[in-house]
Amino acid sequence: MKIIKPKSGEIFDIELEESLLKKNRELAEENKKIFNQYDIKAIDILGSIGSGKTTLMCQIVKKLKKDYRIGVITGDLTTTIDADLIKKNGAQVIQINTGKECHLDAKLVSEAIKNLPLKEIDLLFIENVGNLICPGEFPLGAHYRIVVFSCTEGPYVVIKHPYIFKEANMVVINKIDLAKNMKVSLTKLKRDIKKIKPFIPIIETVARKGKGVEKIINFLKNA
Amino acid sequence: MKIIKPKSGEIFDIELEESLLKKNRELAEENKKIFNQYDIKAIDILGSIGSGKTTLMCQIVKKLKKDYRIGVITGDLTTTIDADLIKKNGAQVIQINTGKECHLDAKLVSEAIKNLPLKEIDLLFIENVGNLICPGEFPLGAHYRIVVFSCTEGPYVVIKHPYIFKEANMVVINKIDLAKNMKVSLTKLKRDIKKIKPFIPIIETVARKGKGVEKIINFLKNA
Repeated sequence: MKIIKPKSGEIFDIELEESLLKKNRELAEENKKIFNQYDIKAIDILGSIGSGKTTLMCQIVKKLKKDYRIGVITGDLTTTIDADLIKKNGAQVIQINTGKECHLDAKLVSEAIKNLPLKEIDLLFIENVGNLICPGEFPLGAHYRIVVFSCTEGPYVVIKHPYIFKEANMVVINKIDLAKNMKVSLTKLKRDIKKIKPFIPIIETVARKGKGVEKIINFLKNA
Repeated sequence: MKIIKPKSGEIFDIELEESLLKKNRELAEENKKIFNQYDIKAIDILGSIGSGKTTLMCQIVKKLKKDYRIGVITGDLTTTIDADLIKKNGAQVIQINTGKECHLDAKLVSEAIKNLPLKEIDLLFIENVGNLICPGEFPLGAHYRIVVFSCTEGPYVVIKHPYIFKEANMVVINKIDLAKNMKVSLTKLKRDIKKIKPFIPIIETVARKGKGVEKIINFLKNA
């Protein structure tokens, strides 16, 4: 099988990209300092379109809001659908619309947090644009990263995205009730994750039914 | 709801991006000239991870190979899983591994076609990296663009990705057998597509069972 790979100096200038990534990392550290200053625990939520990030966020907010004051920053190209849904469940919500950009960056998040009442927030979730590739390279300053994917994304979703799983602190496998329908093996998926990151916690959920959400809550309370 | 949007001159240099996109469009035109010169009909296939692009490709190759000589270029970050599957079904296949890049570009495709026996190809499919955002901005030189998504990607998959549907020549809604399970309305999804592009053909499929594939074949034969 002939395999073509990009070379340095081709269309996308790799050195330039490096400098952008570096600048983003620095800004992410600035964001983290602000979170620490206000004693906020910040958590990135990453995953493809339809993986169930927003449904999970709604469930988590519903269950955690009696114990914590929750803020959520949601990323999307053009809509506020996710933000509206999460707000209804009782969190302070800021929407970032990236236009055509496929991921949040630390600069956009720094703008968003200027608009949040940081003194009144204990837990801040940052729900990225639905995309399992690009957001991986752009840390935002959060303390933890949760990667969410769904069984319906097929049997190769983990091995096709090694970078994003390497950067994760927890993985949620969602829509496990559809695994059989999809002929997807949960055991195989979990083995694929552990190959990339041997000690990472993996939680299985059916977000729309609330199944497994309690385990995420426990992780967050003890994180 | 407070909405944050990127401003020009922020982390990602928008002018620079414009020049990259322009260069890509020029190279795409070069690729198209080569396709025309060899009388090749070239088709982009775009969609998220797990939308069913590869399963569709396998079904299409199986059915079309008795009438046409088929080439396929497959894009993926690091694996050759898709390429291997499609090759088994009887097409000439070249793999592009993009590393961390989230989309194919016209330069990578121009490298790939140098490695294909163009005189022996009638139909060339270019299966992009699994991503419903970034590939939209990078034409590759193909004559048609097919966007594939699956019902399991949820009810908002169309309205959240207006740009990619605007650029499409045909839309495939896959895994329609799971629509009920997912509480997703096909009627609503089709209405969302038609709002963005009123006259676009929409084909419903269950790719792994071959359902609906014949309609795609007919479209391709008459395109």
